Amino acid sequence: MAKQKKQPRPKAATPKGFRDYFAHEVTERSEMLGKIAGVYHRYGFDALESAAVETVEALGKFLPDVDRPNEGVFAWQDEDATWMALRYDLTAPLARVYAQHRNDLPTPYRRYAMGPVWRNEKPGPGRYRQFYQCDADTVGTASMAADAEICAMLSDTLEEVGIPRGDYLVRVNHRKVLNGVLEAMGVTDEAQAADVLRTIDKFDKVGEQGVRELLGKGRLDASGAYIDGVGLSEAQAEPVLAFLTAKRATNADTLLKLMVAVEGSQIGQEGIDELQSIVNLLEAQGYGPDRIVIDPSCVRGLGYYTGPVYEAELTFEILDEKGRKRQFGSVAGGGRYDGLVKRFTGQEAPATGVSIGVDRLLAALREKGRIKSQDQGPVVVTVMDRDRMADYQTMVAELRNAGIRAEVYLGNPKNFGNQLKYADKRNSPIAIIEGGDEHANGVVQIKDLYLGAKIAESASLEEWRGNPSQFEVPRDQLVAKVREILASQSGQD
Amino acid sequence: MAKQKKQPRPKAATPKGFRDYFAHEVTERSEMLGKIAGVYHRYGFDALESAAVETVEALGKFLPDVDRPNEGVFAWQDEDATWMALRYDLTAPLARVYAQHRNDLPTPYRRYAMGPVWRNEKPGPGRYRQFYQCDADTVGTASMAADAEICAMLSDTLEEVGIPRGDYLVRVNHRKVLNGVLEAMGVTDEAQAADVLRTIDKFDKVGEQGVRELLGKGRLDASGAYIDGVGLSEAQAEPVLAFLTAKRATNADTLLKLMVAVEGSQIGQEGIDELQSIVNLLEAQGYGPDRIVIDPSCVRGLGYYTGPVYEAELTFEILDEKGRKRQFGSVAGGGRYDGLVKRFTGQEAPATGVSIGVDRLLAALREKGRIKSQDQGPVVVTVMDRDRMADYQTMVAELRNAGIRAEVYLGNPKNFGNQLKYADKRNSPIAIIEGGDEHANGVVQIKDLYLGAKIAESASLEEWRGNPSQFEVPRDQLVAKVREILASQSGQD
Repeated sequence: MAKQKKQPRPKAATPKGFRDYFAHEVTERSEMLGKIAGVYHRYGFDALESAAVETVEALGKFLPDVDRPNEGVFAWQDEDATWMALRYDLTAPLARVYAQHRNDLPTPYRRYAMGPVWRNEKPGPGRYRQFYQCDADTVGTASMAADAEICAMLSDTLEEVGIPRGDYLVRVNHRKVLNGVLEAMGVTDEAQAADVLRTIDKFDKVGEQGVRELLGKGRLDASGAYIDGVGLSEAQAEPVLAFLTAKRATNADTLLKLMVAVEGSQIGQEGIDELQSIVNLLEAQGYGPDRIVIDPSCVRGLGYYTGPVYEAELTFEILDEKGRKRQFGSVAGGGRYDGLVKRFTGQEAPATGVSIGVDRLLAALREKGRIKSQDQGPVVVTVMDRDRMADYQTMVAELRNAGIRAEVYLGNPKNFGNQLKYADKRNSPIAIIEGGDEHANGVVQIKDLYLGAKIAESASLEEWRGNPSQFEVPRDQLVAKVREILASQSGQD
Repeated sequence: MAKQKKQPRPKAATPKGFRDYFAHEVTERSEMLGKIAGVYHRYGFDALESAAVETVEALGKFLPDVDRPNEGVFAWQDEDATWMALRYDLTAPLARVYAQHRNDLPTPYRRYAMGPVWRNEKPGPGRYRQFYQCDADTVGTASMAADAEICAMLSDTLEEVGIPRGDYLVRVNHRKVLNGVLEAMGVTDEAQAADVLRTIDKFDKVGEQGVRELLGKGRLDASGAYIDGVGLSEAQAEPVLAFLTAKRATNADTLLKLMVAVEGSQIGQEGIDELQSIVNLLEAQGYGPDRIVIDPSCVRGLGYYTGPVYEAELTFEILDEKGRKRQFGSVAGGGRYDGLVKRFTGQEAPATGVSIGVDRLLAALREKGRIKSQDQGPVVVTVMDRDRMADYQTMVAELRNAGIRAEVYLGNPKNFGNQLKYADKRNSPIAIIEGGDEHANGVVQIKDLYLGAKIAESASLEEWRGNPSQFEVPRDQLVAKVREILASQSGQD
């Protein structure tokens, strides 16, 4: 190896806002992604994996007069001066891929993608700068059947990964209905429309009365500060409130209420017709309002999308960090965005799609105890006699060939206690011991570590001496006995 | 949406050296990675997923006097001026992770990792700047049992993904034996040792006589240029040649030959003893030289590693781009590197591990016809009557509930020919047709598209008119008939 100059030792740390995932954290996610991919695939969606790196030009989030386009993304300049960046979501790359390969791809193009995305944002507790997304989108059709399909698929997906019916709700809203509301209000000024949108976004936080005040003269917020209102008259504000509070027990009744809110607006009626056709398609397939529901108070993302908007919420309660009950909340969101591909090609390519927040969904499943929180450790074959390593290796090979996770202790075997400590750290179910005596007698000792731990916790010293968690079996019954103990352990879980 | 200034349209292109992976390209890789992870897991290795981004300091490839450390990696400066970079392999992050978390991790720590890595290199044909690696390493033990285990696991892994015994060979060599050879030659000067190493690296290309010349006075290469030699005497060169050509039919005989090459060198004898214990462990478990073999001519990576070195080669022949037969070659490599963690902690943490070149291994499996080269497309339910979309959606829901991949055509349904062209592009096995007449009669038409394509290729017009690839079945037998056709199609493959 080449000689190095004396340098201070580097710090062993992840960069700020990044983290490592260990063992079951990795395998649980990959199992969940596998299940999601299974549903997406069954719906006819094809996998797509684009590179983590795109040109900043293709990502298209930046203004040309910014010298270094690092707002929100990690970016750098290639040797030929091209700005490149890590993707910040999976939708921008999809638009680029579809524009680039549109002559080879089927139209409509249904694709799914899963993988990490990167955000150059200030990290915080539970907020990382790299996280997973899992998206499904249909590009090239304006049909509401595409939106309905995504909603149905989202519902199926949640059930597939282990969220039972009744514990989630897919809420659907529509940007055009909101536009109809603005029209019904007589709001034509763009700045004022933007103010109304911002106010609507606060509905979840301030409620009906709060929105009413913010649309009018203004409102004293909880901190005592006075927030100026948009300055609309009460009559003008009425359609917004009718919109936000239109939800009724059935989708049909909700749509009737919405019709009132957009009265006289053509675009609003168009939105209601589109919602109606989504509802019709879904109800014909049995997706009733217990799973997918028109909910005008679902306002997240309304500004960004151009048509239907949908969001999956988990409705069960958890305790927040302060011990208060609250609903788990959103784990997926999406909608129709018809302008994305046009940026590249100049041609319309309407698209609709959903993004699942993989880490939040995993957290929800852990919360509900739907996934085990630890990996099953391997059976550990201990080393009593360093010279008989080949024998121990043969044991683990036998176990593995029987499909059992197993390994030989590879540390320094001198201190046997360390070997058992290691097995404990590995969450091993079983340790195998074969010293010289056992070898001479053709037997092995098999230690049930789960049972051993339970006895150590609860039993009196008397019982412990009986040591019923350790068995001596003939060497040729090793695999059978290990299998038997593993089965009894999994029966106890 | 906010108004945009008129700008030239962005180019829809991947950055130079990056590419997109579609459909089966993605799913095949993920299936293969799943199989590999299964073997690694069974051997007791735990998953680890570190972020794509590391500090340049932790990656540690760079000199402090280079202003911008972009040699070989993609790097940029964080807002707090920290240099960050995309990982260029999975080993450097492992060293950082182990150093950072060593008090919480078991020792020895067996871990596997799979994911993309990035190289800021000039791209070329088949050479990308992002590609997958799949590594398994054991950190914290100097025992040769760890090296033997990795070799056995590599062999099992290749068979698990579909490379049969006889089509691959794991070749093992040892850096200490080489050091012993240098000692036996009397080469103590570091520069000269480096020259000898470089010459050895050319053995694959120039052969025994070539190495002899390059170690001596020099050599005329194929282009007619004269390459200066290292300037050793013939006697001095002898141990190197004895080393490179030591391979015999059995591992025992090879080790005897190597003993001659390192005669009188203690480090050399140590290397031979270590190789011997690897061979003993492996042969006790039935891994003979038909799978894992001591091969001193395996010289790749000898300079980098500090102990045993191993490489998996696929031995079957393929035709290269010029139509000449050649062995497929290397798909995995690794070895023991004992200094990596010490960089961070100052403490020894010996480690050994292997990296599988995922894309090359996939290419090999495709070459051998071991994986299908196309994804099975979905059953496509065509749209004859736009108003009956809900009925068509119900059909696909029934098919999906039976586990069959299925979708409704979501494009403009006006032109039926386009729907069949779409099904063709999707590689659909079956199209379903239900027009007004069928609906009135309670039947559906089921078109076997694979059979149809075969008939269209081979049959006369007469036979084609008989149209035996299309069936009319009662609506309630839709799923059963589709299943039957799919079964007959997969029987024909």
